[in-house]
Amino acid sequence: MTIVDFEPFVAELATVAGDAILPFFRTALQAQDKGARGQFDPVTEADRAAETAMRRLIQSTFPAHGIVGEEFGDHQPDAEYVWVLDPIDGTKSFISGFPTWGTLVALEHRGVPVYGVMHQPFTREKFFGDNARATWAGRNAHGTEIVHHLRTRDCPALADATVMTTSPALMEPGERARFERVASEAKLVRFGGDCYSYCMVAAGHVDLVIESGLQPYDIAALIPIVKGAGGVVTTWSGDEAQGGGAVVAAGDPRVHEAALKLLAG
Amino acid sequence: MTIVDFEPFVAELATVAGDAILPFFRTALQAQDKGARGQFDPVTEADRAAETAMRRLIQSTFPAHGIVGEEFGDHQPDAEYVWVLDPIDGTKSFISGFPTWGTLVALEHRGVPVYGVMHQPFTREKFFGDNARATWAGRNAHGTEIVHHLRTRDCPALADATVMTTSPALMEPGERARFERVASEAKLVRFGGDCYSYCMVAAGHVDLVIESGLQPYDIAALIPIVKGAGGVVTTWSGDEAQGGGAVVAAGDPRVHEAALKLLAG
Repeated sequence: MTIVDFEPFVAELATVAGDAILPFFRTALQAQDKGARGQFDPVTEADRAAETAMRRLIQSTFPAHGIVGEEFGDHQPDAEYVWVLDPIDGTKSFISGFPTWGTLVALEHRGVPVYGVMHQPFTREKFFGDNARATWAGRNAHGTEIVHHLRTRDCPALADATVMTTSPALMEPGERARFERVASEAKLVRFGGDCYSYCMVAAGHVDLVIESGLQPYDIAALIPIVKGAGGVVTTWSGDEAQGGGAVVAAGDPRVHEAALKLLAG
Repeated sequence: MTIVDFEPFVAELATVAGDAILPFFRTALQAQDKGARGQFDPVTEADRAAETAMRRLIQSTFPAHGIVGEEFGDHQPDAEYVWVLDPIDGTKSFISGFPTWGTLVALEHRGVPVYGVMHQPFTREKFFGDNARATWAGRNAHGTEIVHHLRTRDCPALADATVMTTSPALMEPGERARFERVASEAKLVRFGGDCYSYCMVAAGHVDLVIESGLQPYDIAALIPIVKGAGGVVTTWSGDEAQGGGAVVAAGDPRVHEAALKLLAG
């Protein structure tokens, strides 16, 4: 097998998606216009435009690769290399005008996510990981592009941890009770965030993200980023998380283990 | 009385504060370093640096004006013009690495907020209002500065409303029950956001922000922005909100009235 460095292509896909989405951000029509204009929905339009652009680029560059996307279903999902695409992770943030959504792109090799990127085109940030390392590319105060490595922070115990979840209301009652066990022992609990929360684990500003009901495309890209920065991502049962479902991401293996004990049934 | 256009000075204050704060954003030390280094706390350091810079600029430019700030208390609070400063509104977002905190600067004339700005230096956005109009200044996808007017969106009924609050856990139980009455009728409820949520009301992407326990400096700057964009800001009892406490901001007066009915004791 030839080892190919997919990093530049992953970044290109994310750029193409961002270019397609950004014109739709903060352009939600007034409620009454929406009726008059029919079913126009900026999220759906942006989602489709971005996924179409990414699929076109993948198929023309790597025709043997598979594609799993939120909008247009599966294409060759049993291929050796499969791209897992979520053009807008965090659609509720998107429609509310908050810059905490992102485009997620993962490349899986024989079912394992080996590259992942989260691209936030409004803040002009890209979080990248390949399980071994993770980087942030963004702009400094003068608008100049800068890149630095990401490292999770030490967090020896739950009592020291900042915990995030998009919304406890998204969990089933039994899951929510187990989440609350972790939340009650944590130093700080914050809501919202979507994919941005996982990137802040990688960057060393958040210690735990706990969510449930995830689709594979909600999490696949984030795994190589968090792992590449020194963190851990598993299901609540401690299994590999690329299939989605109930997921816990931690910056420090100690706090991951402590959370798993409380999240177990 | 001479009418003075304070807008350029308000913007300058916000810029000075952002320059002081941004170097501290996403620089939180590892937990163990913090111990070794003593009580170094990036939020406090950034807060103080920014408030000091703003106070210096106000006192050298308008020595007769008063200043009310979070960090250094009151200076001539009974002056005709009083500046109300919150260098970092949303400290939990700040320490978690999220770009949804902001610097709040209000100018009150005889107790009424007449100018307000929210500055987010990481995303390079300034939301400005003077009760009669509101503007957004930011960057387009190419990094070029652009400015446009802000208008709230129509929202005829709670069933159409996106409602935000920083966290229901910050409310007292009785307040929380009343908030839940509104939340249960809304289309979408989202948590987090701090000052950014009010700016998204002004920008027409969020319909209601409902919070309690606010300090005057948490809300004073946001009032001229939301009102300038066509919205309404009052306490839960319908009174003027610049004193803080329990506050409701709405883009459409109809949804404000509907919320007040459910929030009333």
